[in-house]
Amino acid sequence: MVETELRRDPITGRSVVIDRSPHPHPNDFVLEPVRVDEGAACAFCEGREADAGAELLAWRDGGQAGEPGWSVRVVANRRPMLRIEGHQERRSEGMFETRDGLGAHEVVIESPLHDQRLQDLPVDRLWRVLWAWRTRLQDLKRDTRFASAIVYKNHGRAAGARMDHSHSQVVAYPILPEALDAKVRGAAAYFGWTGRCVFCDVTAQELPDRRRVVSDTLSMIAIAPFASRVPFETWVLPRVHSPRFEEASDAMLEAMAVVVKDVLSRVDWALERPAYNLVLHTAPFSGEADRAFHWHLEVIPRVTRWSGLEWGSGVPSNPVSPEEAARVLREVKVAGAAP
Amino acid sequence: MVETELRRDPITGRSVVIDRSPHPHPNDFVLEPVRVDEGAACAFCEGREADAGAELLAWRDGGQAGEPGWSVRVVANRRPMLRIEGHQERRSEGMFETRDGLGAHEVVIESPLHDQRLQDLPVDRLWRVLWAWRTRLQDLKRDTRFASAIVYKNHGRAAGARMDHSHSQVVAYPILPEALDAKVRGAAAYFGWTGRCVFCDVTAQELPDRRRVVSDTLSMIAIAPFASRVPFETWVLPRVHSPRFEEASDAMLEAMAVVVKDVLSRVDWALERPAYNLVLHTAPFSGEADRAFHWHLEVIPRVTRWSGLEWGSGVPSNPVSPEEAARVLREVKVAGAAP
Repeated sequence: MVETELRRDPITGRSVVIDRSPHPHPNDFVLEPVRVDEGAACAFCEGREADAGAELLAWRDGGQAGEPGWSVRVVANRRPMLRIEGHQERRSEGMFETRDGLGAHEVVIESPLHDQRLQDLPVDRLWRVLWAWRTRLQDLKRDTRFASAIVYKNHGRAAGARMDHSHSQVVAYPILPEALDAKVRGAAAYFGWTGRCVFCDVTAQELPDRRRVVSDTLSMIAIAPFASRVPFETWVLPRVHSPRFEEASDAMLEAMAVVVKDVLSRVDWALERPAYNLVLHTAPFSGEADRAFHWHLEVIPRVTRWSGLEWGSGVPSNPVSPEEAARVLREVKVAGAAP
Repeated sequence: MVETELRRDPITGRSVVIDRSPHPHPNDFVLEPVRVDEGAACAFCEGREADAGAELLAWRDGGQAGEPGWSVRVVANRRPMLRIEGHQERRSEGMFETRDGLGAHEVVIESPLHDQRLQDLPVDRLWRVLWAWRTRLQDLKRDTRFASAIVYKNHGRAAGARMDHSHSQVVAYPILPEALDAKVRGAAAYFGWTGRCVFCDVTAQELPDRRRVVSDTLSMIAIAPFASRVPFETWVLPRVHSPRFEEASDAMLEAMAVVVKDVLSRVDWALERPAYNLVLHTAPFSGEADRAFHWHLEVIPRVTRWSGLEWGSGVPSNPVSPEEAARVLREVKVAGAAP
């Protein structure tokens, strides 16, 4: 007998179906290990700076802008989904409303080396990637036409990556995009009722419980969310109330780099080098949600396929409970993992 | 210069990014033609009725329940995501709420032949599939523990199918699942403001405009929605206000079968036998949304991959405008297509 339950996400109120049967069916997974060709090279590689586009930011130990000598480099996306030229006005045609694709779309090249994955970077190098995210968010926030920004990463073709070379992307929006808006609205409703941050309260409940804790340090925690949408979904967030990633201190970013490396290494081992997405959610630029919202990084392994069920219902069916996923991830022996 | 715009879905209010550049980049698509092994056989094939499970419904020209002689057959899903044994009570543990996976999960086997695709069925046989959906929805609705149901279909592995043999699935929920709920809430808000059905108003605007009309008959219309989430997304709906699919007449189902076959054949040709999902949304069982809601079938080709961008923002990025998709689909010459 398959044992399933409907769980409510405490932030958005949305439902997921969790299959609690102890041994998921092998058909539930699509394991396609991500392999990066060692000998290959691409426009993101060191020495081909001109092909990647104009440099918006770089961490440099040498060289000038547009030259080798960088360890992390940010360029404009060559095919931006949103772009900085555009107007804020809505246009309507009968029932239909549209507006310019105004925003920003940038690429963070995470290493000069073609085959160096994010999880393989030493902590001080991974820190520089987070520093690049923070610096770009601080800058984009100054453009008053933008309402919010997200950072995301596609690792592996199954996760939507088009380039193998390790990179992440920053997008600024003139709106609150739906996924962020759903969290902001849920967090605001919770704050209105309790006067507290829902993320802080989740953390306070998960820490002593331990069943869904993947790893934790003095300042950061990684948990498998109670209403995980996919197998081995993991969230990394600061333990103290922190609405904005872009205001995180250097020390906080260092603690985050340690936990991110730890979590990605565990996921990599447990799911055999899976494709994954990362999503960073930080509070909207207006500041109105700052008391209720709390930045966090979602790690989303892509080892299942969205079917018509998910399209039609919006209720993900997750064949692995977060308790089971957290247990497996905790048991992975990772070299250099967090204590 | 890439020309993109943000469009607002008139039903849910959600945004999509539409790339209006005339020639999308080939990397935008993941075309994996769906091929079904002709010689193969499976538990859904005629003669293996006992392997597929207990028969809930069948269209028979001969034989007894559980025997050959059927053209469409409905069985319980052997690994149900939701099941009819369960309680309605919520349980909570601190911040977290859960309830039994109560509901129903059924499989509609659309043909006795392993390699016969839905779009290849003659109209009178495709009608029987729609008849099976209608009959099962009518029956599930009698269980007062259920709040709603959806029908969906996964065609091809890229669309989440685990069996090649053509089938669809019916799921009854004790809740309004999020994707249906978002439409019901949007339609109710529109009705509250205008006193009209938003689907009827969209149809009334699209019919004379023609730019997004894929095909239409006296009673049905197929359109590329203004805020299409994926390339070649197409909706099929009745032209007169009709909240509930399960109350559609035989004649309406026949008109629908003609248009569904036509649309699937066009999509099949245009995208080279793509994987796709179908989703049928009908009004919630309570009847409260009947004035505002209008049943419709979503055709969702799966030729792009969801990336961290979609996960993180909830704002799909669609590289093909619905105007372009509808133009291509209209121009396909389909044998036996609707006039």
